[in-house]
Amino acid sequence: MRTVEWVDGRVRIIDQRALPWELVLVEYDDYLDVARAITDMVVRGAPAIGAAAAFGMALAARQFDANNRQELLRYLQEAQALLVKARPTAVNLKWAVNKVMKAGSSEALFRVEDIRNEMLRAAKRIANQDVKANRRMGVYGAALIKDGDTVLHHCNTGALATVDWGTALGVIRTAHQQGKRFHVLLDETRPRLQGARLSGWELTEAGIPFEIIADSAAGHFMRTGKVDLVLVGSDRTAANGDVANKIGTYSLAVLAKENGIPFYAVVPTSTIDMSLPSGEQIPIEERTPDEVRSPYGMALVPDEYPVRNPAFDVTPHRYVTGIVTENGIAYPPYEVNLPRAVEGSLAQELEEEDLPYTHEQLSLFDDLDA
Amino acid sequence: MRTVEWVDGRVRIIDQRALPWELVLVEYDDYLDVARAITDMVVRGAPAIGAAAAFGMALAARQFDANNRQELLRYLQEAQALLVKARPTAVNLKWAVNKVMKAGSSEALFRVEDIRNEMLRAAKRIANQDVKANRRMGVYGAALIKDGDTVLHHCNTGALATVDWGTALGVIRTAHQQGKRFHVLLDETRPRLQGARLSGWELTEAGIPFEIIADSAAGHFMRTGKVDLVLVGSDRTAANGDVANKIGTYSLAVLAKENGIPFYAVVPTSTIDMSLPSGEQIPIEERTPDEVRSPYGMALVPDEYPVRNPAFDVTPHRYVTGIVTENGIAYPPYEVNLPRAVEGSLAQELEEEDLPYTHEQLSLFDDLDA
Repeated sequence: MRTVEWVDGRVRIIDQRALPWELVLVEYDDYLDVARAITDMVVRGAPAIGAAAAFGMALAARQFDANNRQELLRYLQEAQALLVKARPTAVNLKWAVNKVMKAGSSEALFRVEDIRNEMLRAAKRIANQDVKANRRMGVYGAALIKDGDTVLHHCNTGALATVDWGTALGVIRTAHQQGKRFHVLLDETRPRLQGARLSGWELTEAGIPFEIIADSAAGHFMRTGKVDLVLVGSDRTAANGDVANKIGTYSLAVLAKENGIPFYAVVPTSTIDMSLPSGEQIPIEERTPDEVRSPYGMALVPDEYPVRNPAFDVTPHRYVTGIVTENGIAYPPYEVNLPRAVEGSLAQELEEEDLPYTHEQLSLFDDLDA
Repeated sequence: MRTVEWVDGRVRIIDQRALPWELVLVEYDDYLDVARAITDMVVRGAPAIGAAAAFGMALAARQFDANNRQELLRYLQEAQALLVKARPTAVNLKWAVNKVMKAGSSEALFRVEDIRNEMLRAAKRIANQDVKANRRMGVYGAALIKDGDTVLHHCNTGALATVDWGTALGVIRTAHQQGKRFHVLLDETRPRLQGARLSGWELTEAGIPFEIIADSAAGHFMRTGKVDLVLVGSDRTAANGDVANKIGTYSLAVLAKENGIPFYAVVPTSTIDMSLPSGEQIPIEERTPDEVRSPYGMALVPDEYPVRNPAFDVTPHRYVTGIVTENGIAYPPYEVNLPRAVEGSLAQELEEEDLPYTHEQLSLFDDLDA
């Protein structure tokens, strides 16, 4: 089962707010509901919201009762604007929505029905490519995990954060599938506890051994030699390798560097924003104080206590050991190697040198493009 | 009202688990209940548990129906051993209990009643000296806070963590009393949320402006220039200046250093353990996983999810800008200056050089010794 999927003319999404207690599926036939589901974090994780928004565009194309091409595209510009605004930090929300819009805007499409079909095809392609990218990142990244390692992980970057498999947690899945024996420390990831609740649920389901820790305990485990590798995702990566990700990522990166522990971000190239020279330009979403005061309705402190709740932070590239993409691992200087990762010229180069897998292994996932 | 107090032959303690919702007082007439209250964190904070345990010894001396001096002291050794074990990390639990035991063991005391009275006097002295030390630390530390500053604070180090006033939060109280205008960021301090619940309650009561943040957001605020000073307490400080304190303190110290922000521990000399050459020898308490999974009975994740829950960490002295004691601020080299702080020769020296207050101001608190 995919986190986000097109089923019988509707968008079906796993409601992540109900986990780990219950696996609840919701179906939408109105793109406005999809936008609200993204804002309310029914679905979260940069790749997952990208796919959800792409399907939201496909829904919108079916909703509008347009008489001609021009009328439909004009309507769809509204849907595009609204979906892009559903959350501000992740770049591939915009990337995915614009990609579907562009596919539908092709001048080769004359009939309204053709536009609708082409936009749905584009959305499905985005979802399938996400799964393929995750599988490839899994193979590249798994080479970083050794038997006996303890891997520290922040937030949720698994199947739930993507269409399937996961980015950083996908690397962990792949290493486990390869038979490696290692341990995972999961930051609980306040305020919404995606690490404890979602990553805890995924690793339980996958049978991968883990322990949850309070976010502030990560430094203690690093300092006392208990962590060998830190793996995180990214909601948006700038051209210079600065990484915007779930709040707390920056702290982990500084602590990892201080303790000589490699720190990798695992990011599909759809989340790399080559238009941004540095992370300083990435907008940081500040979410409702209630997430801190009363997560999931459980009151920790009174409603009147003032709270700041930035949802993301920016990790400057000097703390990032490497960036795992579906086209290989980019190392500094990122100005040189990130463009190669995006273009696809990085993987070959790295494979010929020292990567422990073949083109054939990676091509196993090519059928997912269909 | 004091956090821990002797009232009509009983030990009265504020039940910190009920805050911020309710101010509940509990009274004990059995030292075993006092020990349990320390273990269960009805009372917490190194100085507060020291005072509670001291009064627990005074209670024990009254509970035992001994016929003579020797019999009473033999009984009391059991109480001593049990109270010292109530929690492992804070050193002044042991310090306070031993101090009361030593007072009662004086060979000048022949009658059982005299021993009981002397032990109660010793316990009251410990409580009063804690208040006095806090007031003095407040004056020394407040000089570090400037108008317009934002001060980051971890856990609870206020009146609730001590007998009254507080250590790091006592510094904040003093600066506020002096009319300084500044802002406080409170780490919520998972898993038990002492920052959000207890420090939030204290600063609300005191009318000091604050905002609560998730622990993992502290780094973000430091990196973006929003923090001018970090103030924490300490449950035990080693002779070399290594500081054991609430889990997450180490991470803050590393992040502060990385961002050029001064990081001070505010510690009464009763919490300095000159017998330990470094922090590596400090035992780190690991508490029940339920604190992480279900704080205050609110289930965040299923009971079967594995958890690690170290309650403290050790911050190596190289990250500590200075250590505020009731005898002045010790700066590196700590091997030289911490002994001076403990002996009391530091303050005078510093005052003559550059401290903005007088002996007279500090002597305002001398009446508390009574």
